[in-house]
Amino acid sequence: MASHKEKMQKQKEKVDANIAKAEIDRGTVLLLTGNGKGKSSSAFGMVLRCLGHGYRVGIAQFIKGTYFTGEKEFLAPMTDMIEFHQMGTGFTWETQDKSQDIEAAKKLWVIVEKMLKDESLYLVVLDELTYMIAYNYLDEDVIIDAIRNRPESQSVVITGRGGGAALKDFADTVSEIKAIKHAYQAGIKMRNGIDL
Amino acid sequence: MASHKEKMQKQKEKVDANIAKAEIDRGTVLLLTGNGKGKSSSAFGMVLRCLGHGYRVGIAQFIKGTYFTGEKEFLAPMTDMIEFHQMGTGFTWETQDKSQDIEAAKKLWVIVEKMLKDESLYLVVLDELTYMIAYNYLDEDVIIDAIRNRPESQSVVITGRGGGAALKDFADTVSEIKAIKHAYQAGIKMRNGIDL
Repeated sequence: MASHKEKMQKQKEKVDANIAKAEIDRGTVLLLTGNGKGKSSSAFGMVLRCLGHGYRVGIAQFIKGTYFTGEKEFLAPMTDMIEFHQMGTGFTWETQDKSQDIEAAKKLWVIVEKMLKDESLYLVVLDELTYMIAYNYLDEDVIIDAIRNRPESQSVVITGRGGGAALKDFADTVSEIKAIKHAYQAGIKMRNGIDL
Repeated sequence: MASHKEKMQKQKEKVDANIAKAEIDRGTVLLLTGNGKGKSSSAFGMVLRCLGHGYRVGIAQFIKGTYFTGEKEFLAPMTDMIEFHQMGTGFTWETQDKSQDIEAAKKLWVIVEKMLKDESLYLVVLDELTYMIAYNYLDEDVIIDAIRNRPESQSVVITGRGGGAALKDFADTVSEIKAIKHAYQAGIKMRNGIDL
């Protein structure tokens, strides 16, 4: 019993020390990358948390946009709290039209730049943005500059595999979500509410 | 242009082949583990998706419970769609009372067992459950048995660092969320809506 208490006490002291050390109070930039399940869902979990605190959120979904998703169905109608935008061309590997994709990406980016200047938005989610960098549809330096110049209280969450080296370096928090295994490898279908 | 189209086409074929191969239609068990940010938030993103589809969700939060969180504030009042339960003793390393923690964990587990038999719950979230296994507060085999015998259409998401070997083996999808870096290491405070 004593040793358990000691162990717990040590852990508490360590956590307290870390919390006490952290004194800078500002919005952060989070990059959720890697090949595992949980990148976009994590971003939407933070959206849900923000709604619980009464904060307004701006969302831009790159890539996705032509099919039904739970997040769109739930968030898009909440127009007083949520600004919801999509690239709207569907998966890039479905359109198979590079110039159309670039145009759509640039159009959505113009909207994102406005959100990154909007002090009323506590959080801005840039879902699957990394692919736009990987495909050279959008310029990484332009993206970083716009995020750097955002309102101080605003946080930004970027999701997607990869992500440029400069973006990784710039972000305050980077999580790499590694797929140890995924249900579809065992023949299990994608599932509404879980994957979509 | 042609080579880009070819590349996209190949990727589309690969994705389509994977989707076509997956034919089993049932609820899945997901384990979100690792030391990085994004485990609980990912679970709550799936809750948000389920709400978009009109599915009912059951949530049990182990460890957490004494402080304000965005997820509780948002979800707990939605009693028609959400069943929200918490262990309510706060962080284990704050209570520093092992027998009280075990009692609280077992009490919450009784509620979880009911949720894992409730066909009206499309998703059950067991937030921070892995610590209960690590501390030997709950038995891993008992947990796995209860999850195995759940309704076929129900999915279960488990979050927390670690997680027993048997649980990892049993889960359909396992993502390990690795902290490449975290804002607090640069002295940035935890943030409402993002971390809480």
